[in-house]
Amino acid sequence: MKTEKGRVTVPTDVDVVQDTIEIIRRWKADAIRDCDGTDMPQELRNMDIKQYATYYTTRKDNAWAKAHPEEVQQMYLMSEYYTAKDTTLHIPIMKHFYKEQLKPNTLDDIHRWWEVIDRTEDNVISTWEYDAEKQEVIINNTKPYHAYTVSFLAFVIWDPVHMYNALTNEWKNEEHQMTYDVRQPKTQAYVLEKMRKFVKEREDVDVVRFTTFFHQFTLQFDEYAREKFVDWFGYSGSVSPYILEKFEKEVGYPFRPEYIINKGFNNSTFCVPTKEYLDFMDFQQREVCALAKQFVDICHEGGKEAMMFLGDHWIGTEPFGKYFQNIGLDAVVGSVGSGATLRLISDIEGVRYTEGRFLPYFFPDVFHEGGDPLQEAKVNWVTARRAILRKLLDRIGYGGYLKLAMKFPAFIDYIEKVCEEFRELYDHVNQQKPYTHLNVAVLNSWGELRRWGTHMVAHAIPYKQTYSYNGVIEALSGFPFDVRFISFDDIRNNPSVLDDIDVVINAGDAYTAYSGGKEFDEGIVTTLRKYVDNGGGFIGVGEPSANENGGKFFTLYDVLGVDKELGFTLSTDKYNWECKEHFISEQLTQDDFGEEVRNIYALRDTTVIRQKDHNVNLAANTYGKGHSVYINGLPFSFENARLLYRSIYYAAGKEAEMKQWYSENYNVEVNVYPSTNSYCVVNNTYEPQKTIIYTDKDNFEVELEASEIRWFTM
Amino acid sequence: MKTEKGRVTVPTDVDVVQDTIEIIRRWKADAIRDCDGTDMPQELRNMDIKQYATYYTTRKDNAWAKAHPEEVQQMYLMSEYYTAKDTTLHIPIMKHFYKEQLKPNTLDDIHRWWEVIDRTEDNVISTWEYDAEKQEVIINNTKPYHAYTVSFLAFVIWDPVHMYNALTNEWKNEEHQMTYDVRQPKTQAYVLEKMRKFVKEREDVDVVRFTTFFHQFTLQFDEYAREKFVDWFGYSGSVSPYILEKFEKEVGYPFRPEYIINKGFNNSTFCVPTKEYLDFMDFQQREVCALAKQFVDICHEGGKEAMMFLGDHWIGTEPFGKYFQNIGLDAVVGSVGSGATLRLISDIEGVRYTEGRFLPYFFPDVFHEGGDPLQEAKVNWVTARRAILRKLLDRIGYGGYLKLAMKFPAFIDYIEKVCEEFRELYDHVNQQKPYTHLNVAVLNSWGELRRWGTHMVAHAIPYKQTYSYNGVIEALSGFPFDVRFISFDDIRNNPSVLDDIDVVINAGDAYTAYSGGKEFDEGIVTTLRKYVDNGGGFIGVGEPSANENGGKFFTLYDVLGVDKELGFTLSTDKYNWECKEHFISEQLTQDDFGEEVRNIYALRDTTVIRQKDHNVNLAANTYGKGHSVYINGLPFSFENARLLYRSIYYAAGKEAEMKQWYSENYNVEVNVYPSTNSYCVVNNTYEPQKTIIYTDKDNFEVELEASEIRWFTM
Repeated sequence: MKTEKGRVTVPTDVDVVQDTIEIIRRWKADAIRDCDGTDMPQELRNMDIKQYATYYTTRKDNAWAKAHPEEVQQMYLMSEYYTAKDTTLHIPIMKHFYKEQLKPNTLDDIHRWWEVIDRTEDNVISTWEYDAEKQEVIINNTKPYHAYTVSFLAFVIWDPVHMYNALTNEWKNEEHQMTYDVRQPKTQAYVLEKMRKFVKEREDVDVVRFTTFFHQFTLQFDEYAREKFVDWFGYSGSVSPYILEKFEKEVGYPFRPEYIINKGFNNSTFCVPTKEYLDFMDFQQREVCALAKQFVDICHEGGKEAMMFLGDHWIGTEPFGKYFQNIGLDAVVGSVGSGATLRLISDIEGVRYTEGRFLPYFFPDVFHEGGDPLQEAKVNWVTARRAILRKLLDRIGYGGYLKLAMKFPAFIDYIEKVCEEFRELYDHVNQQKPYTHLNVAVLNSWGELRRWGTHMVAHAIPYKQTYSYNGVIEALSGFPFDVRFISFDDIRNNPSVLDDIDVVINAGDAYTAYSGGKEFDEGIVTTLRKYVDNGGGFIGVGEPSANENGGKFFTLYDVLGVDKELGFTLSTDKYNWECKEHFISEQLTQDDFGEEVRNIYALRDTTVIRQKDHNVNLAANTYGKGHSVYINGLPFSFENARLLYRSIYYAAGKEAEMKQWYSENYNVEVNVYPSTNSYCVVNNTYEPQKTIIYTDKDNFEVELEASEIRWFTM
Repeated sequence: MKTEKGRVTVPTDVDVVQDTIEIIRRWKADAIRDCDGTDMPQELRNMDIKQYATYYTTRKDNAWAKAHPEEVQQMYLMSEYYTAKDTTLHIPIMKHFYKEQLKPNTLDDIHRWWEVIDRTEDNVISTWEYDAEKQEVIINNTKPYHAYTVSFLAFVIWDPVHMYNALTNEWKNEEHQMTYDVRQPKTQAYVLEKMRKFVKEREDVDVVRFTTFFHQFTLQFDEYAREKFVDWFGYSGSVSPYILEKFEKEVGYPFRPEYIINKGFNNSTFCVPTKEYLDFMDFQQREVCALAKQFVDICHEGGKEAMMFLGDHWIGTEPFGKYFQNIGLDAVVGSVGSGATLRLISDIEGVRYTEGRFLPYFFPDVFHEGGDPLQEAKVNWVTARRAILRKLLDRIGYGGYLKLAMKFPAFIDYIEKVCEEFRELYDHVNQQKPYTHLNVAVLNSWGELRRWGTHMVAHAIPYKQTYSYNGVIEALSGFPFDVRFISFDDIRNNPSVLDDIDVVINAGDAYTAYSGGKEFDEGIVTTLRKYVDNGGGFIGVGEPSANENGGKFFTLYDVLGVDKELGFTLSTDKYNWECKEHFISEQLTQDDFGEEVRNIYALRDTTVIRQKDHNVNLAANTYGKGHSVYINGLPFSFENARLLYRSIYYAAGKEAEMKQWYSENYNVEVNVYPSTNSYCVVNNTYEPQKTIIYTDKDNFEVELEASEIRWFTM
């Protein structure tokens, strides 16, 4: 049942018809697609190959947007902080925003929908005026030296994605595409009708690729057209008085702009979510999914498949959310930046297939003279492959201008091999669950909703404050474990979710939604202590369980065996600094714990494994029948991934079982597929590797070429 | 009026009579003293030289202590944290305490004076039992997986200082000296009578050197006789039911052990003090000073001087406290570990003279074969001299076993020169205030009470968490500025305290009493903003003004122009990372900002001067008419001291005035003494230095020998 061809999507454009045909042949592709800024050539529209058409519900129709300014999409913005120096204060609300992108909404009642806040005392100021010409809010009763902000609604007069693509590709004389809000009645009727028309007219199209539905993630630009604020998960661009009034009716309490603005954090996923924000998200997800279903139904009625791009205007359609499967989509396609972002796609359930758009994009930022798209492609494929081997994508594909890629023949050759390799592993995995050794749960405020999407600001962009945690998630994306993402509420609602979990991981900076902060209340603390005491495993990374209480910073100090010195216990002598050898550090040679978490010290009976300058980087502890591990941080590397792998086995109390389907060399991994009686040994590096492989019976030596994947029969 | 001799105190003992005479002659000493563990030789008692006798009010009389066990000194202790795993919990309260030092007090009502706390929920548990034999508290209604502690009173059955000296000097067969509580009625009468007797009997004694009065700072040892808890300022050893009942009567509210225990922090000076703790300190200071006065009066009635040692049993006699001057002491002597600890002594007012006990002690830990007491003496003297030049000590002296020092002739020679140099500078300074360029205030929760005693755990011991701040205080101790220590309450009570201050410095880790934490309330924030806006200077070091509020971590983010990224504003792009040259960094070549304060970023208009890996280490900002500087940390070095010096001038808006009485080379400093028309140029290093000196009129080049101090006439 060997898959000879297909499972590959190729981008095309009017100027690359012959190239497209050539690439389809070489890559054995079975689908072609257009992109933002390209068109499907007429010559190919009747070709016997699956055809994707990008579809934009919210833009590419400025005439409509201009005719209905009140239904242009809106975004909540917060002004800069201004400190009053007297009893009057003028706040230029648009200062440092890009005026070609955003325009204050004065069509709706500004005193209802805007909010002026004294941030020093956290008071809402009721008396203020607005000078529309100067775009200034004037407050006449300020308290001297208090700081004030204005939260206000603005129209999104240039779609942020269009703007980003236009700027990145230096499109000239391009009219700024405005956005309109498909949630509002006139636009909704209009856009649905347009959709019906499209489906009817474009018989050539097999797959409508929604890019995406209705609300863009939060993306604001500054006066220099630079990115000012980006949150791939942000809901601030999904608002309008129309929507908010509906929300109020449903939840039964009045809406406040602060529910969205949240001190200018705009409810970054790093903030522990408030009840009101969770209510709003739930409302939006339900409404967005219901409306998206109408669009998908139209596609189906027209005999076409509906595919969603995971990104851009994806707010409300989170694939691991409660309502996603109601949409009835056939497929999801998303951009693959890493193993974790791959599983953000491949783990999606309730669609017939998933597709990964691999990097690099065929854009001039990489495909220019002197650029090295081949190396980027190698890294992208090998990195993603680890995760594909755990949860299969159904298709792979590329995006951008094929014309640019054609100038790099070595790149074209390499992708040809990638396509072959992908089809081969697809057959082996057989769409079944690979063999799973252990169950691991990542615990944070978001749980399944943000499955694989933790510690992320912009999509797959590393940050100083995140890379030490991303390594944990990236490592997990390729481990032979069943990885779950659970929230504190999951535990509160049903502590038995922990019953079959071998190890709970809590990783993040103090008080963020990823470590949990105030979520570590009495119920959570006692439940987790009990869980470990009864034999469970707990791994804390960074500032796990931090929520200063009762003289301790880490609420699970007793489980972890470490705490953080905040200065208040400096008087207490600390003697436990001697590093000891341990099962988990057996293969650790290059210590890289990422950003230092300051002043971590071990309690008396903890096993300190690594400390540097009196900051504990790695420690292990026993707690009743259970075990715990503390890790300062874990930037991704194969050595660190192995450290985590060993930590998980130790925390699970199953060290003795580790060497099964196991590679001694940590640059190589083993995955087992019972449904096809096969297993693979995969070299994750770009050099040859030698290793000893342990099966469930014996072990043998093997040598692999650079990046090789080798299949064996069991 | 040249001082030819004197101002020097020499330690003696029965086995060094001739050596003592020799040293008196060479060092031109005018006083001799005994120490803990030495005796004044009979042969010297009638010598024509001032004689100090150490005097212990609370120990060296085990017969009395044993006869009155209920009046032995007590200390509040807290057990370890114990997590209940079921509904019953046994807490062995003495676990990890040194049983030869501490013994639970079961003579008083334990249910009145002990406290069992559920630390998970911060509840006091009322129902529990105590098994005196096993020294266990038994709680029969615990909540599973809550953590509990027991706060309890213990008798101090081995004086911590005696214990420390006995262990350090390996005294054999020494009976453990018990302590008794001079505050309690029987002991008080007994000890006062003993004092009268001593004064009468010891006609040879000129100066009674109290070592010290009644309550030892907090010092607990663990089961291996290692230091377990040390707080040089700690009040936990100044308690007894007798005292606490008196306290209750005075303040009118019931006492709780937690007022002292404070989650096991024992109110470390790093904790922002509670109202109850401030009440208790005030009560203790008043009572202790009143009782100390009785002892001093007895000395005076007997024609003797009374001198206090600044340390050991000094709790309640804080020299910068409100009641100290009522004691009527003639002198204070203290140990000099640095410039800051020198000024802890020399700044004391209300005594006729101050004396510094210089290091090293003549103890075997330094004065052994292969030891280098000379180098330690040099460093100690040169370091202290910087501060002496700002505020004069009246005398210097040494402690320990003279016999040991005599084996190091180079050391003896060096101290002879130190004594000469000290007398020379004493004449120049003339007990007058040197010329002061600017007024600088260090702002923290303690203000004047802990003048020069900030960021200190054990006396003059550096800690990882303090050295980056100590550098600020150490630098200030030798600067030609009027240095004040003000508290937040000082500002609250009278904001005009800021009127003549050029620069306010706030230095410390977040939420400690040194940065201030919750002290940064609306009143403080607005007052300081106004102060800077109107032209004041503000320097923040570490995590200044940190008290998360309204979307910011540093409450004075607008003044400082920097804030700390906690994760919640990761979505906001930060572009201000380019380092610029600045007045304050002109002489900075070796960046050493100490412990990294993570994730500091600059606001848009701030001048970033140094950043490393996207952590701002040094920045300057303007705010209205005022200026501010942010410094990550400032370990002491002469280069860093210069950085602070320049920062102060910049913050004060007086850069143009800096080069007056100024040395271009930062290893050299200049001090001016108008009352003697002289100024000195002092080389603070152990190598020759060349520099340009700026007077108030001109400048000239000068070359100095290693550590040289050179005097000029104006």
